[in-house]
Amino acid sequence: MGIVVQKYGGTSVASTDRIRNVARRIVATAEKGHPVVVVVSAMGHTTDQLMGQALEISPVPRARELDMLLSAGERISMSLLSMAIIDMGREAISLTGSQAGIVTDTTHTKARIVDVRARRILEALDAGKIVIVAGFQGVSTISNDVTTLGRGGSDTTAVALAAALGAEVCEIYTDVDGVYTADPRVVPDARKLHVATYEEMLEMAACGARVLMLRSVEYARNYKVVLHVRSSFNNEQGTFVKEGDERMEKALISGVVHDTSEAMIRIRRVPDRPGIAAKVFGSLAAEAINVDMIVQNVSEDGRTDQTFTLPRADLPRSEEALGRIAAEIGAEGWTAEPEIGKVSLVGAGMRSHPGVAAKMFQTLAQAGINIEMISTSSIRISVVVQAAEVERAVRLIHAAFELPQGAILREAHGQMPEISSSELEGV
Amino acid sequence: MGIVVQKYGGTSVASTDRIRNVARRIVATAEKGHPVVVVVSAMGHTTDQLMGQALEISPVPRARELDMLLSAGERISMSLLSMAIIDMGREAISLTGSQAGIVTDTTHTKARIVDVRARRILEALDAGKIVIVAGFQGVSTISNDVTTLGRGGSDTTAVALAAALGAEVCEIYTDVDGVYTADPRVVPDARKLHVATYEEMLEMAACGARVLMLRSVEYARNYKVVLHVRSSFNNEQGTFVKEGDERMEKALISGVVHDTSEAMIRIRRVPDRPGIAAKVFGSLAAEAINVDMIVQNVSEDGRTDQTFTLPRADLPRSEEALGRIAAEIGAEGWTAEPEIGKVSLVGAGMRSHPGVAAKMFQTLAQAGINIEMISTSSIRISVVVQAAEVERAVRLIHAAFELPQGAILREAHGQMPEISSSELEGV
Repeated sequence: MGIVVQKYGGTSVASTDRIRNVARRIVATAEKGHPVVVVVSAMGHTTDQLMGQALEISPVPRARELDMLLSAGERISMSLLSMAIIDMGREAISLTGSQAGIVTDTTHTKARIVDVRARRILEALDAGKIVIVAGFQGVSTISNDVTTLGRGGSDTTAVALAAALGAEVCEIYTDVDGVYTADPRVVPDARKLHVATYEEMLEMAACGARVLMLRSVEYARNYKVVLHVRSSFNNEQGTFVKEGDERMEKALISGVVHDTSEAMIRIRRVPDRPGIAAKVFGSLAAEAINVDMIVQNVSEDGRTDQTFTLPRADLPRSEEALGRIAAEIGAEGWTAEPEIGKVSLVGAGMRSHPGVAAKMFQTLAQAGINIEMISTSSIRISVVVQAAEVERAVRLIHAAFELPQGAILREAHGQMPEISSSELEGV
Repeated sequence: MGIVVQKYGGTSVASTDRIRNVARRIVATAEKGHPVVVVVSAMGHTTDQLMGQALEISPVPRARELDMLLSAGERISMSLLSMAIIDMGREAISLTGSQAGIVTDTTHTKARIVDVRARRILEALDAGKIVIVAGFQGVSTISNDVTTLGRGGSDTTAVALAAALGAEVCEIYTDVDGVYTADPRVVPDARKLHVATYEEMLEMAACGARVLMLRSVEYARNYKVVLHVRSSFNNEQGTFVKEGDERMEKALISGVVHDTSEAMIRIRRVPDRPGIAAKVFGSLAAEAINVDMIVQNVSEDGRTDQTFTLPRADLPRSEEALGRIAAEIGAEGWTAEPEIGKVSLVGAGMRSHPGVAAKMFQTLAQAGINIEMISTSSIRISVVVQAAEVERAVRLIHAAFELPQGAILREAHGQMPEISSSELEGV
């Protein structure tokens, strides 16, 4: 039987009791005959607590030392999980990122995986052991130092291992049941998606869906790793993320995603000359500020407005940077709007169905919700509205596109990828 | 200037505030021009807490996984300490046991250091960095697994590094001021020793003095590493442990050490035949029970009593083992006495001064304290008495040998080893 990679997040292993529950689930998978490789995050809020201690020590902790510190969390959870499995009578071995062959570049605190040398994992699997790997961490090529992969790094570890091992499926266990058509806390009749394409999942992750981090979905797409996002607290089937096929084209819209973590900046009446945008966004990039949406209209009288969104936490630093260059680029001024939110409609079916954008804008207009910015891709439409209107906008759009009922369309067309048949039994 | 190795115990780094204090001390040593290598234990009770979690998961955690778990504690303290030093403007780098080249055998939870490959440490020192090394841990030769060195392992790490680096001194920072002529909590006028020989320190450690573990003193003696045991909470000079020389012979007695952690077992009327002792202690060794003192008198009518002490925690397992073999060896029975204590008088000068034992026994007899067992080496006399009498015995012997005044004798004869001249300034 094929190798199964399972990833458990911090909530799933937050206590020794929960670790024993997770161990039971892992053993059940192994009992079915699958070789199992498990990637585990640090227990509960361990990483945040370690980060807090680092900041007590130094306002700007050295990145190399921070990685050494933060990587301790997974070593604790993985060895406890391994002990729990052994205590249940199965052989297990825990491996650090380094021991598991997760080789990264040297960019501490957000390293990228450059190679997976899975020799020790394969030897342990051959010996009949369940392998527990520390998520979020690796070892750098040149200096042989411990690195961490940044936010969502454990997902990336799991996907990278699944790719390297040719795993049947990469199960991402989390504290939600799967990917929903909208945040169920905002839209009570939001529906769990049974399947989503990599492209849809990428757009949703980029637009603020927190269930999977962008990098791990990109990695999964690049290596065609089938993901199964599911809850570690029940045996329900979750959401499969895989390549699109004929049967999947029928779903017009996969979901409505919102994000209220951003702020908006508008630079007014900038001279419409080559090089101005480069100067503005270059100065923000130099501060390591990740700008999200950028909109610039055609100019009137040689001047134009540039509007963009960015993480709200970066607003003070952005204002400093703009203060330095506003005069230089000849802008008439700029305004910051911290209280905004982004609402995005994502669906692979949009490509072949015109009129989706029009319907979305009309829905908002009828409700009197003003659109501040618009940005689109071939399978996504995002709008920026006032923060106070975000939840209402999500509910209205979700209803307008009949997402609570949308499941039927897709489910009529071969709802499961074959590969997942064993998963339907639950564990 | 010579390399200084400093070791800080868990109490010295129990909080981020204390870590910053330790960092200041380290930076002060570096400012004097010494290359500094620091060995650090886990913060406060971290190791105990991790052990507690392991036992919640499994009553008998797999040793390899336990080592992986417990080694996380030092990784946290060492990276925080490194950050603190960097924050004070000096360059520092933290290294795990593996990165520091601490190579051990494969005996998990009590591995022995078999090699120190200090290449990375030397490179970092050459680059002007203060090197922070995780205590208590190493990497095993064959399987490349994380190992731990057992109780007092960080001291052993420090001594091994001092030996490998040819350090000028290995400073052991702890929560007491040095080695005393007796436990100051029991004997208020106990005196701090300025210097002790390896042999004296070995006997004291073996007899229950907790300030240094036996293994680290053995290691120091084998490699002639000068130890300086001192407090991390003040700048007082502590106790030097080094080879004996002419000037040090004048001190008759170094100290009185007591230990109330043991129990006593007496096997009554065993046939006095070859092989009986081997059978008794072989069966205890098979249970990994460390027997301490053993006394056997000459036999009467072909039978003899065998009496021995062992850690009180091992008493139940010992009784089980004895239950199995008592009939087999033809003993008439056996009794266990948990409430005993051991009082030891240690001093290199004993070799050339007869009458020390007699005076010790007389002192106890005059106070009506019964001696249950006696065991001696050339520089030590140990007696077992009832636990309730231990503290009184320590105070009486301490006074009888005029230990509060003994300092004068030694100090009249060149009180400081030359090597410590820089240490007298404090930091």
